[in-house]
Amino acid sequence: MKKIDTEEFIFNGDGKFSIAQTKTKIKDFYEDKEDYEISLSQLNKQLDELQSMMYAHNRYGLLVIFQAMDAAGKDGTLKAVFSGVNPQGLKCHSFKRPTETELEHDFLWRTVLQLPERGSITVFNRSYYEEVLVVKVHPEIVTQNQRLPAELTDDLDKLWKNRYEDITNLETYLHRNGIRVVKFFLNVSKEEQAERLIERIQDPTKNWKFDEQDVKERGFWKEYQQAYEDLINATSTHKCPWYVIPADDKKNMRLIVAKVLAQELKKLNMQYPEASDERHEELKKLIKIIQE
Amino acid sequence: MKKIDTEEFIFNGDGKFSIAQTKTKIKDFYEDKEDYEISLSQLNKQLDELQSMMYAHNRYGLLVIFQAMDAAGKDGTLKAVFSGVNPQGLKCHSFKRPTETELEHDFLWRTVLQLPERGSITVFNRSYYEEVLVVKVHPEIVTQNQRLPAELTDDLDKLWKNRYEDITNLETYLHRNGIRVVKFFLNVSKEEQAERLIERIQDPTKNWKFDEQDVKERGFWKEYQQAYEDLINATSTHKCPWYVIPADDKKNMRLIVAKVLAQELKKLNMQYPEASDERHEELKKLIKIIQE
Repeated sequence: MKKIDTEEFIFNGDGKFSIAQTKTKIKDFYEDKEDYEISLSQLNKQLDELQSMMYAHNRYGLLVIFQAMDAAGKDGTLKAVFSGVNPQGLKCHSFKRPTETELEHDFLWRTVLQLPERGSITVFNRSYYEEVLVVKVHPEIVTQNQRLPAELTDDLDKLWKNRYEDITNLETYLHRNGIRVVKFFLNVSKEEQAERLIERIQDPTKNWKFDEQDVKERGFWKEYQQAYEDLINATSTHKCPWYVIPADDKKNMRLIVAKVLAQELKKLNMQYPEASDERHEELKKLIKIIQE
Repeated sequence: MKKIDTEEFIFNGDGKFSIAQTKTKIKDFYEDKEDYEISLSQLNKQLDELQSMMYAHNRYGLLVIFQAMDAAGKDGTLKAVFSGVNPQGLKCHSFKRPTETELEHDFLWRTVLQLPERGSITVFNRSYYEEVLVVKVHPEIVTQNQRLPAELTDDLDKLWKNRYEDITNLETYLHRNGIRVVKFFLNVSKEEQAERLIERIQDPTKNWKFDEQDVKERGFWKEYQQAYEDLINATSTHKCPWYVIPADDKKNMRLIVAKVLAQELKKLNMQYPEASDERHEELKKLIKIIQE
């Protein structure tokens, strides 16, 4: 595997993010299929080891967020990157259309319920960011469905701005409490999306993933691209950056995502808990009790 | 791998389960380490494929319960068996000492919250069965901590009997609603437990798993064995059987557990959803829209 410079993909609020100027395809980091598989399995192993230490250390938690246009490869990436990690320290949540009960609450409630426990990784397949994506592209969702008092939805520009702020505040709070947040935008081109949607229709093993709604939403491509650009500019911080990953090549995308996560976990100040001298003396006594 | 006859390990309420007459060690189903690894990885692959189909089919759910004495190998088995399964369709929950909030509820509440969604596997590392295990061995938990009206704890024999019945009713209800329940008791010997606990004390990489409480609970070995025998006899049914797995050899245990799960999943009437002729016509039109 060629060296992956993850800095290339990070947005931490320093520069401006322009989606039009960001590539959806770059040079491959792997030579061929075999090289890809070896590289991915090395990264899987690293992630598993880092997660094991995080689990034993039991102080930090990691929240990983995936956002993307339909068919950009969220599910496949999630599977490829996390399949080797001990499922005991890993939870994945897909956020779909909110239920009646969820709509009775504030917009962060249903995701906050699922935040990671210490020692574990939680992956959000879509997230509270949908509240400034699909909801922003179709503002009738907020004005008609979300049961907000009328005065709060009069000025929609202000509403989106407030949501960016609330999200940033939540993520900052989490960071202050030991929960790291790493956010991925899988950036696919419109042409590549077309190919993948058609494949879903034509391939019987992929047909179950096809949803007519995806074709309708494709009609709002421009609006979604703008919404992504806006939210990434508004919610990228040094503590909780966005990584924008070229998504037209799935293998390349998976290697980059795995590499970013391994690097983020290595930054944590973790170790296996060690016993003190006193504790060692106590432990010797316990061995005697077991052997009685 | 030698053929594993899983019938050997099943308790479905037909015969009586006697823990004293059940082996904790049997002949290995693998030739050597390499044969074990190949066999396990084949079973991992099978489980992954079956789970993928369950996810696409989205009608059934699977609840897998692990119960055992400390150090019997729950964590390691769970990791070995499920590591290859797509984490998106898999959730693991460890049930520890109940929180204050949980104690405010009925004894099934905290586990019911975590029941599997359709299309997914949920694994319980410990479960509501602790309510007739640790709680039965230390009945002061129910009389002092569980906040029940006094009249309900006067007759403890009746209380355990009611709990067996409530659990069986819950599992029957789940089965009737498409959620299959598979329960494993990992049956370790007292001698093997001693070795493993001492290893946890002595091996620095395992030390974090050591809990003094485990040594204290070991003092109640006989009472726990009796509680396991009683609950397996009371809650084994044809629809939701118990599998009692010899746990003194970890590799053998993992192969048996993986095999049982693959068999249970194969019994489900699942297929990838197929499109009708009419639907095919609609899909053709959608391809045209995408290509516009």
